[in-house]
Amino acid sequence: MDKEFFKTVSLAAFGELLRGFAPLAAQSAGLLEAHGRYLSEDVVAGEDLPPVSRSCMDGYALRARDAFGASEGNPAYLECAASLAVDGIFSGELPQGQCAGILTGGSLPAGADAVVMIEHTARMGEATIEIRRSPAPGENVMRAGEDAARGQVALPAATRLRPQEIGLLAALGRERVMVRARPRVAIVSTGDEVVPVAAQARPGQVRDVNSYALACQAREAGGEPKLCGLVPDDAAALRAALEEALAASDAVLISGGSSVGARDYTVAAVEALPGAAVLAHGVAMRPGKPVLLARVGEKAVIGLPGQVTSAQVVMIALGMPFLRHLQGDAAAFERQSATVVAELARNLPSARGREDFIRVRLERRLGMVPLAHPLLGKSGLLSTMIAAGGLARIEAQREGLEAGALVEVIVL
Amino acid sequence: MDKEFFKTVSLAAFGELLRGFAPLAAQSAGLLEAHGRYLSEDVVAGEDLPPVSRSCMDGYALRARDAFGASEGNPAYLECAASLAVDGIFSGELPQGQCAGILTGGSLPAGADAVVMIEHTARMGEATIEIRRSPAPGENVMRAGEDAARGQVALPAATRLRPQEIGLLAALGRERVMVRARPRVAIVSTGDEVVPVAAQARPGQVRDVNSYALACQAREAGGEPKLCGLVPDDAAALRAALEEALAASDAVLISGGSSVGARDYTVAAVEALPGAAVLAHGVAMRPGKPVLLARVGEKAVIGLPGQVTSAQVVMIALGMPFLRHLQGDAAAFERQSATVVAELARNLPSARGREDFIRVRLERRLGMVPLAHPLLGKSGLLSTMIAAGGLARIEAQREGLEAGALVEVIVL
Repeated sequence: MDKEFFKTVSLAAFGELLRGFAPLAAQSAGLLEAHGRYLSEDVVAGEDLPPVSRSCMDGYALRARDAFGASEGNPAYLECAASLAVDGIFSGELPQGQCAGILTGGSLPAGADAVVMIEHTARMGEATIEIRRSPAPGENVMRAGEDAARGQVALPAATRLRPQEIGLLAALGRERVMVRARPRVAIVSTGDEVVPVAAQARPGQVRDVNSYALACQAREAGGEPKLCGLVPDDAAALRAALEEALAASDAVLISGGSSVGARDYTVAAVEALPGAAVLAHGVAMRPGKPVLLARVGEKAVIGLPGQVTSAQVVMIALGMPFLRHLQGDAAAFERQSATVVAELARNLPSARGREDFIRVRLERRLGMVPLAHPLLGKSGLLSTMIAAGGLARIEAQREGLEAGALVEVIVL
Repeated sequence: MDKEFFKTVSLAAFGELLRGFAPLAAQSAGLLEAHGRYLSEDVVAGEDLPPVSRSCMDGYALRARDAFGASEGNPAYLECAASLAVDGIFSGELPQGQCAGILTGGSLPAGADAVVMIEHTARMGEATIEIRRSPAPGENVMRAGEDAARGQVALPAATRLRPQEIGLLAALGRERVMVRARPRVAIVSTGDEVVPVAAQARPGQVRDVNSYALACQAREAGGEPKLCGLVPDDAAALRAALEEALAASDAVLISGGSSVGARDYTVAAVEALPGAAVLAHGVAMRPGKPVLLARVGEKAVIGLPGQVTSAQVVMIALGMPFLRHLQGDAAAFERQSATVVAELARNLPSARGREDFIRVRLERRLGMVPLAHPLLGKSGLLSTMIAAGGLARIEAQREGLEAGALVEVIVL
């Protein structure tokens, strides 16, 4: 029961070991399919974007020098050569001393280098426009190639494709791009005491929380979870389940029986797999110490604590970054997907040499950073994870933090 | 070209109008299907969770008073009555002056009220345990019903089901729950100048960015987007497209042609639909002023700017909150899904009476709030949305903000 963990490593070292696994293969994806994923290619613009200079405003296109010094009290007067439709093209060059009505997004006539907003103009009769503002060259104009220049990298590999990046790809005429595959994540729950959700739990039994919570977390990290069911604390059964799980996935999560015996089964079952090597067993973090990492061929098997809240915290600290790493996120371990800086509402002790993840309730405050209230219930309670808006991280070299200190909080 | 918008309203008033649409119907969903959605029922615990008191630690269960005052220098000695497996049940009541070996998650013997961690004990011979710490009653124990009490609401309606809530539902034995439907969002792009992504854009033409970027945004807000293609600036064609879009969706997004003519077509087409009422036309925000909101029967039609970055900002400010509102998020308009407080790196002017959304690059700083650098490129450039880590919001009553001020930033 008081058996020590071998191969206990720091959180940073565990992250380094995970980073040692190669990102998944590249694959071609349509734009909507590529959303949320990471580019595996540099996307080079095949053309200038915009292809011609365009107006950012409704107004009049002109040569800036033709209205130099214009003001309310001393307006310039230009002849209106045309009123362009949004897709209209001015034929030839804009004559000196003339302007052209233009709409947002419209193409600038050749020769024009600025746009004066409609609000700063007035129409004087049929063909004369009063200009009441002195425009700077380039004002209210998107220059050709300003968004993306032909032959240049518009989006580098490893870029995460948010809606705006998908929009840029559409603008560039890219219907498909190369992105990394989503990891297929097999989830195995073990423990003689664990019963299916549908079952009535007898005394001493608990329902299978981990399969579901971990699957949701894997999904939030871009993975495709596959529930492999419950496996009893039996080395042969576990080994068979792991082999099946590995065959159909890119990574395996086992949430271990919490008993020492079950931990041994997991290690034994993993070690018995062909080509398996245990890389770490134990990580200096709380909650979550009993974490196992093994390499089986090119795939990772991560053994998570059976204790449900610890398993969730280890997923946030290590498992979810790992799944993003597999998808090509180059900063997966440096940067959580969502963090805020918050002010600690009370002192928090912490042991040096161990990374602590403290559940906090985040109190929003107008015009100030949020206040992080540590939730000091028992760490095993699901209800503290429910009440938590985030996890405050206390780094290994700190001996704790005082009330008022600013802490980084991973938003849940 | 300088036509005024009628029915221009404040951002808050526009939000109120959107809130007037009823959330979507409730439907039963399995746990993995319910992930990320909003409960439409109060989930009442059918049993206590945990059903019995459990240990939070590996150690020894005992009566706290039997080791009262124990310390390193003055330990207590208790007889070990049993070593329980994780699913083991102690038969009868723990005798006074005795303890039982227990594992994390194990059920406490009747009579025991505390657990001393293994680290603060030692085994003395066969059956005697040395206790070196004075436990408080309840220490290291999750009491029966502490996570959820039978008959009490464990998760109220409108709760968003994150991984930990899904885990709690699993623990309670709930295989299915009632959640609100995901909104089916029809997306219509209009404008004679807009061509499909696969097309070569001739001078004056632009590719269809909005269909893709808005679809991704709708998806990130929990919606199920459906691209309805490109419609020319023609009232009859637009009306037909809207009718088809409405028939198969819960909400319609039209990204308008940017020309004044196209705007008129959109309004005319919407007004021509049976049972349609225009609720607002124009919202006091920048970018994004030309926004249309109509009610057609029970469904919303939102007309977004054709200008691509404005359309994206309006989606973030209004469209995405609206989609969450339809799913039952009671705070959809008060709270963006992800915000941080950041320090403004330079002065930002803003007109009173108008809500400004300024693209910012977020610079992370150790132990400090991030620095928000306004991106001052032309607002029409896609590249400023690509460079942006967030949108700083300047409220309507402010005339701007000075460098060093703390601002709320919507994380992109």
